[in-house]
Amino acid sequence: MRRALGQLRSVGIIGAPFSGGQPKDGVQLGPDLIRAAGLVNRLKEQGCDVKDYGNLAFESVSSDEPVGLAKRPRAVGRANQQLADAVRRIKHDGHTCVMLGGDHSLAIGSIHGHAASGSEVSVVWVDAHADINTPLTTTTGNIHGQPMSYVIHELHNKIPVIPNFSWIKPCIAAKDIVYIGLRDVDPGEHYILKYLGIKTFSMSELDRLGIAKVMEQTCDHIFTKVKKPIHLSYDIDALDPSVAPATGTPVVGGLTYREGVYITEHICQTDLLSAVDIVEVNPKRGRTEDEVQSTVNAAVDLVLGCFGRVREGSHPADYKMPDP
Amino acid sequence: MRRALGQLRSVGIIGAPFSGGQPKDGVQLGPDLIRAAGLVNRLKEQGCDVKDYGNLAFESVSSDEPVGLAKRPRAVGRANQQLADAVRRIKHDGHTCVMLGGDHSLAIGSIHGHAASGSEVSVVWVDAHADINTPLTTTTGNIHGQPMSYVIHELHNKIPVIPNFSWIKPCIAAKDIVYIGLRDVDPGEHYILKYLGIKTFSMSELDRLGIAKVMEQTCDHIFTKVKKPIHLSYDIDALDPSVAPATGTPVVGGLTYREGVYITEHICQTDLLSAVDIVEVNPKRGRTEDEVQSTVNAAVDLVLGCFGRVREGSHPADYKMPDP
Amino acid sequence: MRRALGQLRSVGIIGAPFSGGQPKDGVQLGPDLIRAAGLVNRLKEQGCDVKDYGNLAFESVSSDEPVGLAKRPRAVGRANQQLADAVRRIKHDGHTCVMLGGDHSLAIGSIHGHAASGSEVSVVWVDAHADINTPLTTTTGNIHGQPMSYVIHELHNKIPVIPNFSWIKPCIAAKDIVYIGLRDVDPGEHYILKYLGIKTFSMSELDRLGIAKVMEQTCDHIFTKVKKPIHLSYDIDALDPSVAPATGTPVVGGLTYREGVYITEHICQTDLLSAVDIVEVNPKRGRTEDEVQSTVNAAVDLVLGCFGRVREGSHPADYKMPDP
Ligand SMILES: [Mn+2]
Ligand SMILES: [Mn+2]
Ligand SMILES: [Mn+2]
Ligand SMILES: [Mn+2]
Ligand SMILES: [Mn+2]
Ligand SMILES: [Mn+2]
Repeated sequence: MRRALGQLRSVGIIGAPFSGGQPKDGVQLGPDLIRAAGLVNRLKEQGCDVKDYGNLAFESVSSDEPVGLAKRPRAVGRANQQLADAVRRIKHDGHTCVMLGGDHSLAIGSIHGHAASGSEVSVVWVDAHADINTPLTTTTGNIHGQPMSYVIHELHNKIPVIPNFSWIKPCIAAKDIVYIGLRDVDPGEHYILKYLGIKTFSMSELDRLGIAKVMEQTCDHIFTKVKKPIHLSYDIDALDPSVAPATGTPVVGGLTYREGVYITEHICQTDLLSAVDIVEVNPKRGRTEDEVQSTVNAAVDLVLGCFGRVREGSHPADYKMPDP
Repeated sequence: MRRALGQLRSVGIIGAPFSGGQPKDGVQLGPDLIRAAGLVNRLKEQGCDVKDYGNLAFESVSSDEPVGLAKRPRAVGRANQQLADAVRRIKHDGHTCVMLGGDHSLAIGSIHGHAASGSEVSVVWVDAHADINTPLTTTTGNIHGQPMSYVIHELHNKIPVIPNFSWIKPCIAAKDIVYIGLRDVDPGEHYILKYLGIKTFSMSELDRLGIAKVMEQTCDHIFTKVKKPIHLSYDIDALDPSVAPATGTPVVGGLTYREGVYITEHICQTDLLSAVDIVEVNPKRGRTEDEVQSTVNAAVDLVLGCFGRVREGSHPADYKMPDP
Repeated sequence: MRRALGQLRSVGIIGAPFSGGQPKDGVQLGPDLIRAAGLVNRLKEQGCDVKDYGNLAFESVSSDEPVGLAKRPRAVGRANQQLADAVRRIKHDGHTCVMLGGDHSLAIGSIHGHAASGSEVSVVWVDAHADINTPLTTTTGNIHGQPMSYVIHELHNKIPVIPNFSWIKPCIAAKDIVYIGLRDVDPGEHYILKYLGIKTFSMSELDRLGIAKVMEQTCDHIFTKVKKPIHLSYDIDALDPSVAPATGTPVVGGLTYREGVYITEHICQTDLLSAVDIVEVNPKRGRTEDEVQSTVNAAVDLVLGCFGRVREGSHPADYKMPDP
């Protein structure tokens, strides 16, 4: 069932160098760093057809006062609208979309654009955080802690009017979401997760079940009825800080590198992966060059795992062994 | 079954800044460091009612020559008698007792005081070491490697007369003990463990069974007949040195942070936790400030896990979601 | 079933300070470093009878141009012939042979000498790499990436004539091989593994099954028919670089220290371990003294695990507990 090297997957990459969903400088450097680590060539080497759509250019927003607690709403709303358009275009071009962030507020646009491109999608959200605060439950005001609240149907009436957010139409059903890696969840977020009955695998469940059962149950959950295309939204802070320290809100006790990669291998094998976000790589949060490189390399390996790389190796279908 | 934030647990904290059970300076700083990392407030934030009984003041012992190999027996005996009294008082006040060490010789007083406060107790001992040498099997003479031998009924006739130890009455049955995390066990200790048929989960068993099964079997074992209150004696060196390096006798190949926390979450869910020791945090053994902080933070997280913190998050029972 | 301390195992140690199978200086220092960490005494302390055969002295080869891509073939061929003789002698003396490398090209001589000493053997190969390139599939030319190709019956007709390799007779059947730890496998190697139906547990399988099931299935596989003596060829780079960084070709996402040791404990329990290679410890690849020591200590612990060390501890069969 495993794809051989010769079979192409078509990947469209879009960079979103945006940091307005949170306060820490540096996360806008993520897309170019991940590219500089060789992402495109390595995808091609493993048999993918790759089109790099470059980076989005985000217009600066001159006056962007908080609305309630929500910080920089106009910039976040506008950037996500641009991203949604780009993702829809990439999906229309027939690619699996890879969105390189940037902070996790970009999931608003990425998921919206993905869902707007065709049928309903399911979301696998891999993160230390639930990022499901509404603008009214947030205590920090940072919109990278809120993206899920804007795209879930069931939360529509909990969202106030926010400038530059009016284009957003909820597009995901709570039952089509699975969380993996949670270990830092606000009380309001926990209420929402329970209230909506969203499937979650916190680090406790990972410890109890192991990553293999978690991925089986993840797929059982999202494939209960129809097999929708999968949107994998991967926050690098899902990984343990010993693996991916260069990120804005690291939380101890995270996924090992191996678990992190296993998730991508398993999702890849479903053949339903339709869009991927890799977000929150922030080189300015690494204390050493090693910390930055470890984080960036992990990000690259997660993308490679999404597109057919398996640790046992692989070979072209037409491989001929040389004789003496 | 999970406690919501609103339900109170009553915690009594006693600091025991004692280092006489081993030779390395610094472990007496543990209690204040763990407090300085915010233990009390964080327990309150997660819904606990907390009373901090402060630190015990240990009288110095002027002349304390070894008895046989056992080093500083008078100081250790006297300190533990003070601790036993304090723990008994805290239990009588109705709290779950948290004893912050100091070295692991303090388990003598902590377990003794706990058992003296009411019914029989079971002991879950999480440690790289068995700490069950008798004063006659020890090769180092350090009493932090011996506490279990003084409190187990079945070893009573193996213990010689030691000054300031006459107040100790054995109070734990071998069948009521479970060890988790063993990986550095002396031959004499191994003999005792086998001879008494004590249930042990060494790191080999952890590797074979996984932490979830180990905790299930731990509880199966101690709940075979009646459900006694649990005394959890947690040596920080049970954790891997990569997580908790600032300790006197680190041993490679230990519990991950996640396994360490999982143990506390599971014990907490039994609703039978009655006393906790957190011992052997030694800031002077950390080579960097990061190493000290990692160790101290792990200690705090272990206590929080004992009192209801779960990684999936939680919310007050009366949480109301804000509408726009 | 566990051996007590008192029962002797007879160990013969041979050092092979050879680095010609790869380009990085330093791996020839492995044997003496591993000894300096106390290997011999620690084996004796755990009840082994140890004979140290010292280090092989390898003659320098004056002119050693590549044959095809294969680099330094004459030196590698000659060194392995010396090693094969030494291993055969140690086996004839009745020991379990421990070969301390040096690079992994030495497995040619070690396996050859082992197989030449008696009955057929099975091979458990623990490594990030498959080291099964033929001289014609290799892209680097380094022979430490090729040793398996020379000793497997089924690959005999794929091997060209190479100077100083004519003494090698294939001696291992593909069905008698198990790989553990793979995560960096060349396309040609992957083809060979599949083509020959060799049993492999890559890191993906380790994540899926856990180390305990992997070792059960490893033994199920090699014990399908007759129980042949086991040749355990352990490349230190099977371990994660966080544990064993001082090696020439580290690969992220490896075995934990605990998994690495568990493998040796399990193999030891079979009572069929007949020869062990510990290779690719390269102190010059460690960036700090800590990195070197961690790597060397891991190597020592792997050998100790092969010869009866268990993490729960042990005691002599005639242990007498002292009474007061
Ligand atoms: Mn996050
Ligand atoms: Mn996030
Ligand atoms: Mn200990
Ligand atoms: Mn201890
Ligand atoms: Mn290797
Ligand atoms: Mn190798």
